[in-house]
Amino acid sequence: MIQLEQLVQKNLAKEKEGKVASYIPALAEVNPKQLGVALYDLDDGEIGEAGQSEVRFAIESISKVITLMLAIKKMGIQEVFKHVGSRQTGFAFNSILNMEIEKAKYPLNPFINAGAIATTSMVVSKTGEGAFEEILSFARDICNDPNLYLDQIIYHSERRTGNLDRSLAYYMESKNMMLGDVVTSLDTYFKQCSMMVTAHSLANLGAVLANGGVKPWDNKRIISDEEARCVKSLMMTTGLYNQSGTYSRLIGVPTKSGVGGGLMSAAPHKYGIGIFSPALDKAGNSVAGLDLLRDIVEGLELDIFD
Amino acid sequence: MIQLEQLVQKNLAKEKEGKVASYIPALAEVNPKQLGVALYDLDDGEIGEAGQSEVRFAIESISKVITLMLAIKKMGIQEVFKHVGSRQTGFAFNSILNMEIEKAKYPLNPFINAGAIATTSMVVSKTGEGAFEEILSFARDICNDPNLYLDQIIYHSERRTGNLDRSLAYYMESKNMMLGDVVTSLDTYFKQCSMMVTAHSLANLGAVLANGGVKPWDNKRIISDEEARCVKSLMMTTGLYNQSGTYSRLIGVPTKSGVGGGLMSAAPHKYGIGIFSPALDKAGNSVAGLDLLRDIVEGLELDIFD
Amino acid sequence: MIQLEQLVQKNLAKEKEGKVASYIPALAEVNPKQLGVALYDLDDGEIGEAGQSEVRFAIESISKVITLMLAIKKMGIQEVFKHVGSRQTGFAFNSILNMEIEKAKYPLNPFINAGAIATTSMVVSKTGEGAFEEILSFARDICNDPNLYLDQIIYHSERRTGNLDRSLAYYMESKNMMLGDVVTSLDTYFKQCSMMVTAHSLANLGAVLANGGVKPWDNKRIISDEEARCVKSLMMTTGLYNQSGTYSRLIGVPTKSGVGGGLMSAAPHKYGIGIFSPALDKAGNSVAGLDLLRDIVEGLELDIFD
Amino acid sequence: MIQLEQLVQKNLAKEKEGKVASYIPALAEVNPKQLGVALYDLDDGEIGEAGQSEVRFAIESISKVITLMLAIKKMGIQEVFKHVGSRQTGFAFNSILNMEIEKAKYPLNPFINAGAIATTSMVVSKTGEGAFEEILSFARDICNDPNLYLDQIIYHSERRTGNLDRSLAYYMESKNMMLGDVVTSLDTYFKQCSMMVTAHSLANLGAVLANGGVKPWDNKRIISDEEARCVKSLMMTTGLYNQSGTYSRLIGVPTKSGVGGGLMSAAPHKYGIGIFSPALDKAGNSVAGLDLLRDIVEGLELDIFD
Repeated sequence: MIQLEQLVQKNLAKEKEGKVASYIPALAEVNPKQLGVALYDLDDGEIGEAGQSEVRFAIESISKVITLMLAIKKMGIQEVFKHVGSRQTGFAFNSILNMEIEKAKYPLNPFINAGAIATTSMVVSKTGEGAFEEILSFARDICNDPNLYLDQIIYHSERRTGNLDRSLAYYMESKNMMLGDVVTSLDTYFKQCSMMVTAHSLANLGAVLANGGVKPWDNKRIISDEEARCVKSLMMTTGLYNQSGTYSRLIGVPTKSGVGGGLMSAAPHKYGIGIFSPALDKAGNSVAGLDLLRDIVEGLELDIFD
Repeated sequence: MIQLEQLVQKNLAKEKEGKVASYIPALAEVNPKQLGVALYDLDDGEIGEAGQSEVRFAIESISKVITLMLAIKKMGIQEVFKHVGSRQTGFAFNSILNMEIEKAKYPLNPFINAGAIATTSMVVSKTGEGAFEEILSFARDICNDPNLYLDQIIYHSERRTGNLDRSLAYYMESKNMMLGDVVTSLDTYFKQCSMMVTAHSLANLGAVLANGGVKPWDNKRIISDEEARCVKSLMMTTGLYNQSGTYSRLIGVPTKSGVGGGLMSAAPHKYGIGIFSPALDKAGNSVAGLDLLRDIVEGLELDIFD
Repeated sequence: MIQLEQLVQKNLAKEKEGKVASYIPALAEVNPKQLGVALYDLDDGEIGEAGQSEVRFAIESISKVITLMLAIKKMGIQEVFKHVGSRQTGFAFNSILNMEIEKAKYPLNPFINAGAIATTSMVVSKTGEGAFEEILSFARDICNDPNLYLDQIIYHSERRTGNLDRSLAYYMESKNMMLGDVVTSLDTYFKQCSMMVTAHSLANLGAVLANGGVKPWDNKRIISDEEARCVKSLMMTTGLYNQSGTYSRLIGVPTKSGVGGGLMSAAPHKYGIGIFSPALDKAGNSVAGLDLLRDIVEGLELDIFD
Repeated sequence: MIQLEQLVQKNLAKEKEGKVASYIPALAEVNPKQLGVALYDLDDGEIGEAGQSEVRFAIESISKVITLMLAIKKMGIQEVFKHVGSRQTGFAFNSILNMEIEKAKYPLNPFINAGAIATTSMVVSKTGEGAFEEILSFARDICNDPNLYLDQIIYHSERRTGNLDRSLAYYMESKNMMLGDVVTSLDTYFKQCSMMVTAHSLANLGAVLANGGVKPWDNKRIISDEEARCVKSLMMTTGLYNQSGTYSRLIGVPTKSGVGGGLMSAAPHKYGIGIFSPALDKAGNSVAGLDLLRDIVEGLELDIFD
């Protein structure tokens, strides 16, 4: 078995090369000197943990995977991808350029902000005002984490500073790309980003995807094998903001990051991985977290291109 | 064993949904009703073939994989990726937008035209005027195809119509992104695109990558395992023009296409695959070829996200 | 004196080459077969009129001149141009591209939608909720048109369909470009676009600008001579959407258009001109109106480059 | 009469706020502490001069006015504007963005580099290899300056560093926007930029345009009145790089600048103005020159919006 404790010790200092997200106070105040990891082994169902693996932090963009899974569950994958692309972009996650330059009919993919808001709006179109309650309940289920909760302070900060997201949403609304009500979709989106998770809960989420869409702890299917494959493919090609291509080369395991410092990976048929370390590189990815992930991938030979 | 003959018969008619490349006469005149496939099985070294697997066609963009491998061999992977990125783009393969908008220091990745020309220019910086001869010789070696040759008609057509490539090259030259001489690099690039291959030779090339950089037929190493992994990762994230993300979702095997109608895939440790069918979709990928590839990937369970 | 009646007859049929604005029903239902003109002669204070010069129509983008004048009056021209540029754009009036690509600190100019909303927001920052009442009262004064009113149907349509304007406003808010409250600024903007004017009232407005900022009918100064010059310069360089350069070449008189079919021109020290004809070219300018304007400019030798 | 000597003294020190062009040694070595002006009075044919009005410097972008006039003379204005636009751009003079984003059929206007090269290519299409000789001869004629010459050092520097211009030219060639041979057009363009003029010769050129296309010193017509008007309108809307709109507001006289430090203005029916001061602002316009020009425009009341 891999020595998680040692890997945490080895990589903890890397946080100095990054900075915690500063656009809202609740994130800016997080202690950067934290690194936690949890590893769900599909082989025996055991979970290894080290460091701050039980510390709660804001899920932020990793929630995009959850709403994508929920939208797929509700509408079917064919229908979902009629309203959002699975193409990459060379621009930032919150850019409007690519849509306007290409006169796009839908946002490029579900993991840039525009596409994530559109995906949330699919859920809203099916559930209305109750959308967030359903997302929260779904998140608790697939993360096997009944304590996962909405942080009101982060949510209100997100809502207060979310003008670029509003800009994207109204742009999409003007082009008929939003299935659900704009205001409800935005509010739901701000809430989903403010859910508090742990590295442990993310390892569980990764395990569901690695296990082909079936929760390994109770053997219940969430989405089909093909659908889980799609989600993993999207994580690989667009999961790490505009460094997705680079990290696909450096760390060949489908991974999604969030500016709260989380990383969630799914190594097919092998492991679900959750990592937390809040200091970020310029692209918004956890610095120490990515280095730790790389060590794990190498140690366990998880690179899918290998 | 998979029934290649049946899969060719099943997918041949799909070509009607596409069109052969028309920007030069030599490509426009190719008979669209062709579909050929070759499958190199790393397990036993056997090659299965069906359809027009021995028909020669222009390699076009698949040559970008070859020059990338040669540049890596000559300069080392660290040095190569100091001069070209491994990021995706949402724009067309021949667009200048992303570089100018982002004031990029180097082209985004080696498989868009700008990045491919820059990569060829790395080879030129090491070999000068003799660059193409070396590329040709290298291509024959790693494709195990001593008959692979330069088609003079296609080359002269490429050179005559290559003004957008010239625009990209001079843009990069103005920003000091070209390591080698511009004129030689462009000429070498037009030549490398005009090399004539078969589905069979591409299956061999795919087998080298699938085999971790070692030619399986003579056990000689071309590039390191890590380097081969990087090439496969790039094929996955940017190998199919701006449909790379979509096909990564639909066909989870690292693949590079060319507008000559070729597809070259590498299923790690399992197969090298070469396909030829010249009718293209709007993004420039072989229509019948992609459908055939999907059937093979499903039939042999090759999806790396699975 | 120029024969306005004849010029109206000559140019009326040109409307067939255009189309009335169709993005809201209230504009789509306007009869395209209308052409009206009013000419305020600064020499003798006489107003010549012909055709539908007293028909009311939506002022739309011509209101941008009015709020710019009001913002100048309230804040001074130096302060205004600290928050909005006077640069041109090659993009559409409702595009977000230029701001995002250039990481602009403020919108490019007061006559594209972004800049107009920012200008309205300057007025809002000084007057709060009462902003529109003040704009309406100011418009009545400088157009010498006490009957100028807010059309509720158009206003509600504008508000309902104004998502692209919302997108621009929230984008600016996210970059701290809005001086006043976003929601109030947008609402005020939708209202100012829905004010109902006539060719006659626009001729009066043009006369104020042509007369160096002084209302010629009561000799009261609105803005300084230098400020009036700036407004005219902006009308010349950016007044006719992205055809401003072309019409500056073809019709050398500062002019602002609106998608309601209005044109308002100021020929320095000579004439204020108001024109109405609702069928528009692709750029959003009145087709018959521009041809009529060109005839007037030639007939009266008003080209300022001459 | 205005006191030119005093205005030169007043504005000379402004050069400290700028920097001489540095992209080629021949420009970088120019002494920045220079300011010269010449004023051609159409009323009496007298020329006032002060400062370094007889110092030679590189014409650079002001040559774009000369080739535009020559193209108009050879092909007629209708034909010229079938191949180049008269629209503004919000981007830099050497940007490719606008053309590619808008899939433009021709470059936006004759005063950005792309449009200027296309205009030179019109001349080349009529005169072939002899194009530059004809431009030189035409320049000497309309500047009334038989000593105007091609500086070989500057020309070779321009050619050596002109890769961005090559990129633009090949982009246009790929879209069929170039009427003449690309290589000849580029070479001619580099030469025309390297012609050596004085403030005096530019005042003469301005006088021809101010005088409606007729050389005032010998009463010979070069282009029609309407054509001269068009040239002046383009100078107003796009003559000062991407600060054209701003300076149209601040200095309301049609003006074209060059990175050699020259300014050439045409005040209709009144004056031709030539100014030289090589220290430039960030947009590439002469700092002391623009301030001096502004003083002249105010002193002589030349603002055409007034």
